[in-house]
Amino acid sequence: MRTKSEAGGHAGSGRVVNIRPATAADDDAIWHILEPTFRAGETYPIPRDISRADALAYWRAPGHAVFVAEDSGATVGTYYLRANNRGGGAHVANCGYVVAASAFGRGVARAMCVHSLDQARQRNFTVMQFNFVIASNERAVGLWQSLGFDIAGRLPGTFQHPRLGMVDAYVMMRKL
Amino acid sequence: MRTKSEAGGHAGSGRVVNIRPATAADDDAIWHILEPTFRAGETYPIPRDISRADALAYWRAPGHAVFVAEDSGATVGTYYLRANNRGGGAHVANCGYVVAASAFGRGVARAMCVHSLDQARQRNFTVMQFNFVIASNERAVGLWQSLGFDIAGRLPGTFQHPRLGMVDAYVMMRKL
Repeated sequence: MRTKSEAGGHAGSGRVVNIRPATAADDDAIWHILEPTFRAGETYPIPRDISRADALAYWRAPGHAVFVAEDSGATVGTYYLRANNRGGGAHVANCGYVVAASAFGRGVARAMCVHSLDQARQRNFTVMQFNFVIASNERAVGLWQSLGFDIAGRLPGTFQHPRLGMVDAYVMMRKL
Repeated sequence: MRTKSEAGGHAGSGRVVNIRPATAADDDAIWHILEPTFRAGETYPIPRDISRADALAYWRAPGHAVFVAEDSGATVGTYYLRANNRGGGAHVANCGYVVAASAFGRGVARAMCVHSLDQARQRNFTVMQFNFVIASNERAVGLWQSLGFDIAGRLPGTFQHPRLGMVDAYVMMRKL
């Protein structure tokens, strides 16, 4: 049964996305989503030839809370939430999101981000920071801006895009 | 015998700092330098009560090249050099530096930074990025600026300073 996510899981087309914590049984579904994204190498600073084990170890690293988004019983997205720093920086959260290519344009990324902001607040984080939003990923940049994120910094020439050559990345953040 | 570092190890007072790769035998000296810095909690987002083992594991994490700076046979500083990202971001280096409180004002941080820029170039990095320079650490900010680093971003309210309350941090970077 699909349920509307607490944080507002309505997808763009009016569909409802269910977002829940990932379990070990979700590893195959998560890898199925991560693999084409990492192989493309256009949006994450991850080796394009990363293995399944390394990719899952990265996504599910210690300290990461991992979630999956489901639509009609299919896993259509995944995200992690973690503390971006420790000590005096432990109030700052960080997330990474990946949407299955087959589910683009349905509002899955938006639903996951809204969900993650709520989860971060529940964990007493007061700031969300994205460390490395690749500038050529205009869809993501625009989506984060529409969700209240500002560009706090531009990191010139920090990402070698496989088609576009060297591009910039942004640090984006918002209060919670 | 002390030798001038290749990258220009002259300290502020005209002294010569020798900088060399750390060995396992340097763990005690490294911890002796890290401990007061991490306990103070004013310059690194690290728990103030971090253990020796955790601190050394952080400083000497896999993928870190660790160096020590010596002056008259005493270890007066340490730094690590690592890739800041992987994949399309693997050309960007990152460093952390700590100077022994007893050696402040002798140019040790400057000598280590100059050394690290040279080491980074030798490893084919083309950019150096500091992810989290705490704005209240004005000595460091000014030093990095004098060494060619620009402030690429300001991260508002991302560091809880034990005396000053919430302060900003900077992303600083320069080409190599």
